[in-house]
Amino acid sequence: MLTDSLLRKFVEWTEEDAPQGDETSRVLIDEDIHARATIVAKAPGILAAADEVGRVLTALGLEIVQRKPNGSELKKGDVVMTFEGQASEILLLERTVLDVLSHCSGVASATRRLVDKAKKHNPKVRVAATRKTIPGMRFLDKEAVRVGGGDTHRLSLSHTPLIKDNHLKIGKNIEEAIARVRARSSFVNKVEVEVSNSREALRAAKAGADIIMLDNFSPEETRVVLELLRRKGLREGLQIEVSGNIDEENIGRYAILDVDAISSGKITHSPSIVDMSLEIVKSWKAST
Amino acid sequence: MLTDSLLRKFVEWTEEDAPQGDETSRVLIDEDIHARATIVAKAPGILAAADEVGRVLTALGLEIVQRKPNGSELKKGDVVMTFEGQASEILLLERTVLDVLSHCSGVASATRRLVDKAKKHNPKVRVAATRKTIPGMRFLDKEAVRVGGGDTHRLSLSHTPLIKDNHLKIGKNIEEAIARVRARSSFVNKVEVEVSNSREALRAAKAGADIIMLDNFSPEETRVVLELLRRKGLREGLQIEVSGNIDEENIGRYAILDVDAISSGKITHSPSIVDMSLEIVKSWKAST
Amino acid sequence: MLTDSLLRKFVEWTEEDAPQGDETSRVLIDEDIHARATIVAKAPGILAAADEVGRVLTALGLEIVQRKPNGSELKKGDVVMTFEGQASEILLLERTVLDVLSHCSGVASATRRLVDKAKKHNPKVRVAATRKTIPGMRFLDKEAVRVGGGDTHRLSLSHTPLIKDNHLKIGKNIEEAIARVRARSSFVNKVEVEVSNSREALRAAKAGADIIMLDNFSPEETRVVLELLRRKGLREGLQIEVSGNIDEENIGRYAILDVDAISSGKITHSPSIVDMSLEIVKSWKAST
Amino acid sequence: MLTDSLLRKFVEWTEEDAPQGDETSRVLIDEDIHARATIVAKAPGILAAADEVGRVLTALGLEIVQRKPNGSELKKGDVVMTFEGQASEILLLERTVLDVLSHCSGVASATRRLVDKAKKHNPKVRVAATRKTIPGMRFLDKEAVRVGGGDTHRLSLSHTPLIKDNHLKIGKNIEEAIARVRARSSFVNKVEVEVSNSREALRAAKAGADIIMLDNFSPEETRVVLELLRRKGLREGLQIEVSGNIDEENIGRYAILDVDAISSGKITHSPSIVDMSLEIVKSWKAST
Amino acid sequence: MLTDSLLRKFVEWTEEDAPQGDETSRVLIDEDIHARATIVAKAPGILAAADEVGRVLTALGLEIVQRKPNGSELKKGDVVMTFEGQASEILLLERTVLDVLSHCSGVASATRRLVDKAKKHNPKVRVAATRKTIPGMRFLDKEAVRVGGGDTHRLSLSHTPLIKDNHLKIGKNIEEAIARVRARSSFVNKVEVEVSNSREALRAAKAGADIIMLDNFSPEETRVVLELLRRKGLREGLQIEVSGNIDEENIGRYAILDVDAISSGKITHSPSIVDMSLEIVKSWKAST
Amino acid sequence: MLTDSLLRKFVEWTEEDAPQGDETSRVLIDEDIHARATIVAKAPGILAAADEVGRVLTALGLEIVQRKPNGSELKKGDVVMTFEGQASEILLLERTVLDVLSHCSGVASATRRLVDKAKKHNPKVRVAATRKTIPGMRFLDKEAVRVGGGDTHRLSLSHTPLIKDNHLKIGKNIEEAIARVRARSSFVNKVEVEVSNSREALRAAKAGADIIMLDNFSPEETRVVLELLRRKGLREGLQIEVSGNIDEENIGRYAILDVDAISSGKITHSPSIVDMSLEIVKSWKAST
Repeated sequence: MLTDSLLRKFVEWTEEDAPQGDETSRVLIDEDIHARATIVAKAPGILAAADEVGRVLTALGLEIVQRKPNGSELKKGDVVMTFEGQASEILLLERTVLDVLSHCSGVASATRRLVDKAKKHNPKVRVAATRKTIPGMRFLDKEAVRVGGGDTHRLSLSHTPLIKDNHLKIGKNIEEAIARVRARSSFVNKVEVEVSNSREALRAAKAGADIIMLDNFSPEETRVVLELLRRKGLREGLQIEVSGNIDEENIGRYAILDVDAISSGKITHSPSIVDMSLEIVKSWKAST
Repeated sequence: MLTDSLLRKFVEWTEEDAPQGDETSRVLIDEDIHARATIVAKAPGILAAADEVGRVLTALGLEIVQRKPNGSELKKGDVVMTFEGQASEILLLERTVLDVLSHCSGVASATRRLVDKAKKHNPKVRVAATRKTIPGMRFLDKEAVRVGGGDTHRLSLSHTPLIKDNHLKIGKNIEEAIARVRARSSFVNKVEVEVSNSREALRAAKAGADIIMLDNFSPEETRVVLELLRRKGLREGLQIEVSGNIDEENIGRYAILDVDAISSGKITHSPSIVDMSLEIVKSWKAST
Repeated sequence: MLTDSLLRKFVEWTEEDAPQGDETSRVLIDEDIHARATIVAKAPGILAAADEVGRVLTALGLEIVQRKPNGSELKKGDVVMTFEGQASEILLLERTVLDVLSHCSGVASATRRLVDKAKKHNPKVRVAATRKTIPGMRFLDKEAVRVGGGDTHRLSLSHTPLIKDNHLKIGKNIEEAIARVRARSSFVNKVEVEVSNSREALRAAKAGADIIMLDNFSPEETRVVLELLRRKGLREGLQIEVSGNIDEENIGRYAILDVDAISSGKITHSPSIVDMSLEIVKSWKAST
Repeated sequence: MLTDSLLRKFVEWTEEDAPQGDETSRVLIDEDIHARATIVAKAPGILAAADEVGRVLTALGLEIVQRKPNGSELKKGDVVMTFEGQASEILLLERTVLDVLSHCSGVASATRRLVDKAKKHNPKVRVAATRKTIPGMRFLDKEAVRVGGGDTHRLSLSHTPLIKDNHLKIGKNIEEAIARVRARSSFVNKVEVEVSNSREALRAAKAGADIIMLDNFSPEETRVVLELLRRKGLREGLQIEVSGNIDEENIGRYAILDVDAISSGKITHSPSIVDMSLEIVKSWKAST
Repeated sequence: MLTDSLLRKFVEWTEEDAPQGDETSRVLIDEDIHARATIVAKAPGILAAADEVGRVLTALGLEIVQRKPNGSELKKGDVVMTFEGQASEILLLERTVLDVLSHCSGVASATRRLVDKAKKHNPKVRVAATRKTIPGMRFLDKEAVRVGGGDTHRLSLSHTPLIKDNHLKIGKNIEEAIARVRARSSFVNKVEVEVSNSREALRAAKAGADIIMLDNFSPEETRVVLELLRRKGLREGLQIEVSGNIDEENIGRYAILDVDAISSGKITHSPSIVDMSLEIVKSWKAST
Repeated sequence: MLTDSLLRKFVEWTEEDAPQGDETSRVLIDEDIHARATIVAKAPGILAAADEVGRVLTALGLEIVQRKPNGSELKKGDVVMTFEGQASEILLLERTVLDVLSHCSGVASATRRLVDKAKKHNPKVRVAATRKTIPGMRFLDKEAVRVGGGDTHRLSLSHTPLIKDNHLKIGKNIEEAIARVRARSSFVNKVEVEVSNSREALRAAKAGADIIMLDNFSPEETRVVLELLRRKGLREGLQIEVSGNIDEENIGRYAILDVDAISSGKITHSPSIVDMSLEIVKSWKAST
């Protein structure tokens, strides 16, 4: 994404946090005061959005002195980034920068935990995100998933088709739906179908789905379906994704099965942040 | 906030989720199909953002059949909202609507849990939010705090001044900083000061702060400072806020003290969502 | 796409055409004059963007009296649409509405001509567009391609990966590039590779590409490559796209081959419009 | 136009082409790879939009090594522009830059062909564009007309008044309409009237129009009207524009007459692009 | 201008006045309270922007009960407008609506006073505005000038050329500048030249300017130039505008001369508002 | 406020003034001509917005050679600012820059005049602005008030609550309204109440208002209320603001009373500009 596109978002977010200026800094800090600031991790985690924040701060005229790259493993007390610039501008940006870094690092950390658990049982399985990101944060949240070692899955509804429960309720059966998507959507797209039982899974496989999402299957139910597909000669060339209430506790039981991907909404919709703070470490009067 | 302002945000969020249309619905659902949809709670919680979502859906031409108001206590399985309209438009909006409702309800529920704990010990104490909201969600997050029974605290940096650690590091001492804010910020604003020990608290109180925020004080340290202020005759007319790592576990120990407000970043920066799903319950061909 | 998203674009385009109002209508037409207008085809073609224009005009408060659907075959003189509303608003919208309809219908018509030629030789082959759309018109141009019977191909760069010449020049060879995309891009994506000779085509097929784009191959060269792939047992499960200087003259010679898709930039980057005009057919003074 | 205004448009167009990043380059090209790219003409034509693209690329941090100026006559194979920068950014911009350059050069080339034909017969006649530009491209399309040697005509509806057929249908006759525009529109504007026969032309001239547009007049009809106006002493101080289905074939027959301007919609609504491609010519790892 | 374009501006202005909601009304006024409000003139003046405000309020869902049209002569105490709707929305809009109405009516009133003075001496002379409008208010300010009986002059820099002092300083002399504008700007534009003495005025007239602006000429100097032009046979077909420090005191002395237009910056850059207030006249609980 | 936020506003304003480029400069000034420009005061006043304009011009690539700071006392003929850059860009920006500087300086000057009058009688009294700013100019207008020595009062409706006449009409009495605001608005906010007679003032004071605004009280009525409040022991800890038709004539009579703040709408809604002009002082051909 162009730095200018990221910058535009940051400027809007800063305007949200200070629609008519920073009343405290305006009063206390003269415009010619410059400062050096560090961002310090207050808890361990995987760093995300640091590359993007670095590009934006540079575009805003701040000088990055040092910065850890995306994907760094943070320990409590680690310095994430050090930068210099006009002190009042640093304080105006503080909240937005910290919120983005700590939220995205929270997404990356939650992803990494799931990935680590899953890969232990099955190095080839993918841990995928969903579209359940915080509105406005889609791009950064998906990037954080990548940083954490996850698979982004669909970036948007404009991406490859995924036939769900609600589509089928409106009137086509699985076979018709797959045929229609195949015929009307671009040949560059795969066709994915969400199913809720093994019978639907078989029908989707026979009808030529490229990917089948087993929604809310227990590990045992998943195993049974996979076996069934294999027996019918339908497993080959088909991708299997499991989804629904999979967390750090139970992900291993899915990972050991022959599934291609395990998706989780929680890593993006309810991550706990990796807490960070911004500290002014020195300040001086700039010569103009 | 004007419905048109909310609408603009929702339209942008929907464009983020489908920058070039919904590839699946485009193919599967004819434009003249209308449907009735319900939003169902899949977990208990306090409902937030439902009034705002209702206004936006109405503005988009959907018909709200039934809707629970903000603040409703949800049980698993409760129908949050039922509405009708063009089926493809409902599915295009689905993700955005669910993400907003479930995230904001998560904020309200986290707030309510803290409020309930705190009020049990002290009915007059306020549980306040911070500015640590997800970028882009400030207005809805602060509304969700209100819905949960919390105090919004400052809506933005343009609001009343709050002198923090970083401001003091840049060069003024507490007394000078308070005097300068008093002199240069509008008389309609209070002056709040963040302090990190009892000596600073006393200095801030003597220098005429309206609100003192005790940052990262233990309950015992808080008790000592309050006693000190009372003894020096400085407690009267002064508001005391405690902040820093306060959660459901320890909030009671702060609430029983004579503090005015207890603030928590976690309720907005790391809430777990209240899970909800959208179900198409019937569909029909609309006569144009 | 939400009507509000389309509306926003139309409002911007109208502001481009009249940044400070319509100087002529302001002077000549009183605000209480209403009118009925028809849009008339001045040349034959395939109608596109009429559904979208209809939704926008309705959202702007105009009343659509009659409208042909997208995909209609227009003869010179056909009435495309009739609508009523405030006369000065109709004239303010006139140019934007005509430009959108006639440009998009031009895209649909150019697409249809290629599709008709190709399908005559091979009913299963797809005629696909490229990303060479006029900046700002991507969504409507791709819709027009669909209306004309074409395949949209990738909607954007955020869509499924396509490895091109320039990517390979920067440093990976075909095999590495395919492996890297396979490993790092989501499992929901196919992998397409653009090749410029039969040797590259074979390498891409062996390395597991899902789609191979034969760039600037003559029909004879295409035939040879297809034969080679078949002989090597690589044709099965592989999609073949041909691209580069294919037009109404030569498309038949590609279509008769066993290719999956034939793409053309010209249908979106250089379509001739389907000329249309807007005629006021009556006007009256509205009672307020 | 400010570079920042152009930049904003380019950023939006790039976001249209990659709403959530470039999936291929993200995977294949490391962020520290820089490259040199050339834009090469694949067909002859007149170069337009190169100055504007150059300013935008510079503002985005790319370094222009060499660039032909607007108006250059391109031969197949000519290098239009060479620039350097981050490789992934170059590829993200590629499509937008090529689409703008090749479309605008198409407009300039179509204009130049008409201008050359017309000037051969009448060096003083102007070839003018209309408002039939692609929505969103007005500024660049009108600039391309200038580059091609054409006259922009009105930039927008907010510009000088032009009384058309539809205005007259709504209720004023020619004389009243001219008088009203004269009285109510600013004295800095001329008054132009579109007429469809010689009687209307005479009435408009007598009523004091500054410019008369002969709409869909054959060369012979045009000659007759001009003669009539001269005989009545109305030709002096009056500007005559001819419009409607004038192309490279017949423009000479209008140009030899005593007309001031010949306008053509086709040069902006249906230009064929001047095809160009972007080639990476070398790449290297940048030291940060 | 489309109502949607006006609406967008009003929504932005309301967001400026309440970036995160109306803290007072949120607390005091339940969402189901509706009210009737009147806008009352607190001083005499000419009403402007009332049509535009009426359209916007209607688009926002408020019901206009009664409204005076633009151009109405207001006496102190006159009811300008009465409307009904949700009480909290009315109060949220109050400041924006009043600021727009009272500012624009101030522009119209200042214009009318100049127009009345000028027309008394010369019914044919025009009182024109300049481009010195408050940034962001150009369209409404120019409309207010029209409402007050004035001439808008150029709406923007994209409009007809005006050669000024600074252009000439950069390097062309008057004759060259006029010739160049004539050759390179569209034939639909007039050419205006600003001059600072009679010699320049003569040169501009001889060189074929359509309009000459006498900048900072005293009435006597103006008279002399006009006489000179007449004597040289250059007055015919030429428009003369006077500009610079013309106010209600001295406008009559210019108006009696044979000038075509008198322009004034003050009517738009420094108008005194026509004071108005919004009064809630009744309120009730709406049945939903 | 971030320079990028200011820049965005300036770019929009420049687009308002030249939606499709500057027709005159385009024709007359070659792109490689650079120039030095000065902004000169044509009247005395207090300079405002110069810091902000300086930051924006720098961001646009112009070089500031010399600039007076905000708050400078200008005499006629003073050079406010000197800068260099591309000549056509300077002329494109001229009007916007002058309009912002002269309008904001008008606000600062009007404020300073009131402040000087008031402080002469009472050095501690504050002269406060209202929310009656020109739509779109809130931030710059409030900054100009500060530059003039005034108090900004509330920056927006999202700021601290102010209970007005219209709120009370809708249904709560003063006591209920104050209690409700106290309970429901954040503890970081003060509560202000507007009253129209001494009885209301007493009620508001007893009910615990932090600030009472005496609306349209004569100096004598103000004196009586203040005496009453003192006698009842309610003056202590209460802030008193007077408002309504206070101008340079009568402000002294309020200032000598024991009031905390005197507010004036006129300083922002109807300031006369401090006239300035931009002069090109030299120009040269830049080497590229």
